[in-house]
Amino acid sequence: VTSPIAPVRWEHDRLILLDQRLLPGQELERAYARWEDVADAIRTLVVRGAPAIGVTAAFGVALAARSSRATDAGALLGDVEIALKGLAETRPTAVNLFWALDRVRRVAEAARHQPVADIRQRLLSEAQAILDEDVAANRALGDHGATLVPPRARILTHCNAGALATAGYGTALGVIRGAVERGKRITVLADETRPFLQGARLTAWELVRDGIDTTVITDNMSGAMMRQGKVDLVVVGADRIAANGDTANKIGTYTVAVLAREHNIPFYVAAPLSTIDLNTPDGDHIPIEERSAREVTHLGGAQLTPEGARVRNPAFDVTPHRLIAGIITERGIFRPPYTESLARAFAAQAC
Amino acid sequence: VTSPIAPVRWEHDRLILLDQRLLPGQELERAYARWEDVADAIRTLVVRGAPAIGVTAAFGVALAARSSRATDAGALLGDVEIALKGLAETRPTAVNLFWALDRVRRVAEAARHQPVADIRQRLLSEAQAILDEDVAANRALGDHGATLVPPRARILTHCNAGALATAGYGTALGVIRGAVERGKRITVLADETRPFLQGARLTAWELVRDGIDTTVITDNMSGAMMRQGKVDLVVVGADRIAANGDTANKIGTYTVAVLAREHNIPFYVAAPLSTIDLNTPDGDHIPIEERSAREVTHLGGAQLTPEGARVRNPAFDVTPHRLIAGIITERGIFRPPYTESLARAFAAQAC
Repeated sequence: VTSPIAPVRWEHDRLILLDQRLLPGQELERAYARWEDVADAIRTLVVRGAPAIGVTAAFGVALAARSSRATDAGALLGDVEIALKGLAETRPTAVNLFWALDRVRRVAEAARHQPVADIRQRLLSEAQAILDEDVAANRALGDHGATLVPPRARILTHCNAGALATAGYGTALGVIRGAVERGKRITVLADETRPFLQGARLTAWELVRDGIDTTVITDNMSGAMMRQGKVDLVVVGADRIAANGDTANKIGTYTVAVLAREHNIPFYVAAPLSTIDLNTPDGDHIPIEERSAREVTHLGGAQLTPEGARVRNPAFDVTPHRLIAGIITERGIFRPPYTESLARAFAAQAC
Repeated sequence: VTSPIAPVRWEHDRLILLDQRLLPGQELERAYARWEDVADAIRTLVVRGAPAIGVTAAFGVALAARSSRATDAGALLGDVEIALKGLAETRPTAVNLFWALDRVRRVAEAARHQPVADIRQRLLSEAQAILDEDVAANRALGDHGATLVPPRARILTHCNAGALATAGYGTALGVIRGAVERGKRITVLADETRPFLQGARLTAWELVRDGIDTTVITDNMSGAMMRQGKVDLVVVGADRIAANGDTANKIGTYTVAVLAREHNIPFYVAAPLSTIDLNTPDGDHIPIEERSAREVTHLGGAQLTPEGARVRNPAFDVTPHRLIAGIITERGIFRPPYTESLARAFAAQAC
């Protein structure tokens, strides 16, 4: 039995991140003591995946409080606020980042009359709580999602919504792990997911490590595989789910959703409630990050495209709610109409 | 003005191929004197693209005749037959290969009572005729296809159906060149086309060389681009068109066709008549080549996927005729129902 994958963890007063840029060739952990370096790690994809980014940013704030030289709460909260703002500017699409930062900001503000040592400790405890809750949420959503999976199923997934994208266990891969743990016979088709190859590098690495039968395909093969009847179900993660169910996820997710509909294959989104943003009314209001052209034009130092060609590199796209058969969360599976079902989920949580 | 691209040509008793594996980084031509090496060049993608493969194979047979030590026609035709069989085994999907080989076989058989020097010369002349006719066909289909292109158009294409895929000018890119030559304002979205990256490497190289505004996207971006209204028209090439219009083309073409239909964008196939195979009733009867897993798992020597992951690598998929708005050929644009329109085209040709 291999140890669980922990892409983000706290050890000896340092934040430890598994460098996901180097997988699967190299398993290298990096230790972080400064929030600025954590921000850089998020920006440069040392860590990626909406829930993992949120957890990482929360620890980044805890590091900012620890390294602050402030001797009074006011000065400490000033330093914390700088880190909150800086970390919020790393990536725009995944709402878990802002959700986690809001949560630690509230903890800092609530503790503003405490000694600085207590504030520091509370921020660290909150980051650890966010991490622990994320793993628990993924196990719970894996339980719910597993009920949707037939006893023998060929599941297609896009990008990496696994242990590496979260604090552990995964969302889309949590559903797959949940099904496997129930004894279902699962084979997985993993889209390689250009340009960063999260599917080929990360999803395949995670699933092979768990002994789950995994086949990597290039992104442009998913249509042919569905047409040949080789896919029973699609499950993907999410970077932000709007109030109406529209879902931003890794570029290419929309294409997979259109193909799934064309072939009458159910298309599910798996995400914790922290990915649902009721303040974003629909997908048109989700900011989509455009990343560096170099991610597309180069691979491993080699230039693929000629000089003079333009490049687009939107990191995400939006899948409209009408293509989504269900949203799998730690509080159960939400069905259309999402405007009502998602609102009810949060109303229930607020009680 | 840059010279036209000639991926396949005859010079000083040698077949010259532009090594397409090295583009766009390096423009290297290789000279071939033996048919066995030509077969290897086809297999290993030094040359690719259905019409280009056909032309290359025809020259391969001419080389076999030249290098044969036979002193009588019977022995020469025996050596030619060995080359015909060997070249036919290089790749299974593109019908132009078999079409070109059949054509040179008929020439050899018709000349069987001629002196061996004459047989050699006739095979070489036939190969050159196939080359010249291919360029002429592409210019003609570019003329026809250009009439389908609005005065300002954003055209998406997949893989490379350009000068490099043919004897020159191109099929899908022939339509684009035809539109540009008529003064239309064209911008092109080129799918990068994993795993071999014909779009990123070859289509972008060709079009940038011609001064045509070209943007490379990863294959998984085409859906998002269409949803954002950034595509007016799709045109692709073909490796084999069945009698009912079903079209085998580079893997991912089917996905693009489904997406085009979803967004009410016309999807055209551009190909010479030599790509249409009335002996193949429909797409289910087109053999689809599965290529080496290494094309997916490795890029430039670097391994992308972990050990233990399976890989699929079908080189082509089939787009059903119902998704194709028209088939653009040198004899005009054929419309559904294709079973009738394609049969009429060949009946007219036979007159």
